Amino acid sequence: MKVFVIGAHGQIGKKIVSKLVAQGDRVFAGIRQPDQAQAFEDAGAEAVQFNLMAQPHELAAAFKGMDAIVFAAGSGGQTGYDMTLMIDLDGAVKSMEAAKLAGVKRYVIISAEFTPDRARWPRALQPYYVAKYYADEWLKTRTELAYTILQPGSLVNDAGTGKVTVNPDAGGEITRDDVATFAVATLKTPATIGKTIALINGETPIKAAVQA
Amino acid sequence: MKVFVIGAHGQIGKKIVSKLVAQGDRVFAGIRQPDQAQAFEDAGAEAVQFNLMAQPHELAAAFKGMDAIVFAAGSGGQTGYDMTLMIDLDGAVKSMEAAKLAGVKRYVIISAEFTPDRARWPRALQPYYVAKYYADEWLKTRTELAYTILQPGSLVNDAGTGKVTVNPDAGGEITRDDVATFAVATLKTPATIGKTIALINGETPIKAAVQA
Repeated sequence: MKVFVIGAHGQIGKKIVSKLVAQGDRVFAGIRQPDQAQAFEDAGAEAVQFNLMAQPHELAAAFKGMDAIVFAAGSGGQTGYDMTLMIDLDGAVKSMEAAKLAGVKRYVIISAEFTPDRARWPRALQPYYVAKYYADEWLKTRTELAYTILQPGSLVNDAGTGKVTVNPDAGGEITRDDVATFAVATLKTPATIGKTIALINGETPIKAAVQA
Repeated sequence: MKVFVIGAHGQIGKKIVSKLVAQGDRVFAGIRQPDQAQAFEDAGAEAVQFNLMAQPHELAAAFKGMDAIVFAAGSGGQTGYDMTLMIDLDGAVKSMEAAKLAGVKRYVIISAEFTPDRARWPRALQPYYVAKYYADEWLKTRTELAYTILQPGSLVNDAGTGKVTVNPDAGGEITRDDVATFAVATLKTPATIGKTIALINGETPIKAAVQA
């Protein structure tokens, strides 16, 4: 399977790349800085210069021939909300348009817990949630992509547990490693197409949880 | 006609309020600060405490019984892009949802020239355009409101000319006074329902241009 990972250099992106490589997929790691390339090449992925500030037809060139795209990019806490608008919202939507232009159908995005319900957005993160919300909504209603929207709880850096609870009633934490494992499993699980899946760490092995 | 103006204290909002009052409409001026109320009351409008940070059901209370809503709010150049996300995008969409909850059908929004075409967004204003773009798109595709989207060119503070060019090929300037006059005319012109109208100053009297 040929998978393009947008935001490959991010904390979750890196883990998705290495897990895909480990299971024998051909991985194209979208990176912004040329000096990020070598580490991906060394790890068995193919590094591709990729900048979400570009227009959809430019992004599409990088997607040609892919079987799936994973959007794991995030403007991050170190940039301003201008980049939240440009990357988390418009960058995401441009990558969806680019997927269509390139003829790629499968599209998985890493979103966030509670994104669909404005009343539950954490107060300090509301502007970020606005961006994620409208990107998710665009994917669901304005594209015909075979999408999966993953909405993990509070991200932590502990070791992966391999176990989750999907669509929990309350919030919770989840390791970035388990989010990456779940995202990789999603790509191999057609039952996840068209679904929005909230996930926190829990008791169900990911292999089973991804089928639910 | 009972009209609620969101962002009544803004530069265009104030002009819309006074023009509506002048032609005999009942105007409800949505304001954030209580000390803004007196000036509107003195001018013959009714001041209503209104904060776009609230949830749609809260906003809806202010819209009950209105014939139309005009969205003339903008987070403005003095706040950060967090407020661009919260007000220009999510605030706008929440007001659309509130309109539906309150049973108000007619909704006019002040957007900006070139908003529909990402490639033409002015570089320095791109994050602002992201917010306006997704708000406009939501209005067009995710609501059943009887909408009009006005997309004026570069706003200037000169005296109104009363004349515009609609849907020009190139960009241009327009006075805030003429934008307000056009918005007020839009409310009285059913032919504008369901339309996105770009406008700059030009040669056609607004009364005729609004019918085009």
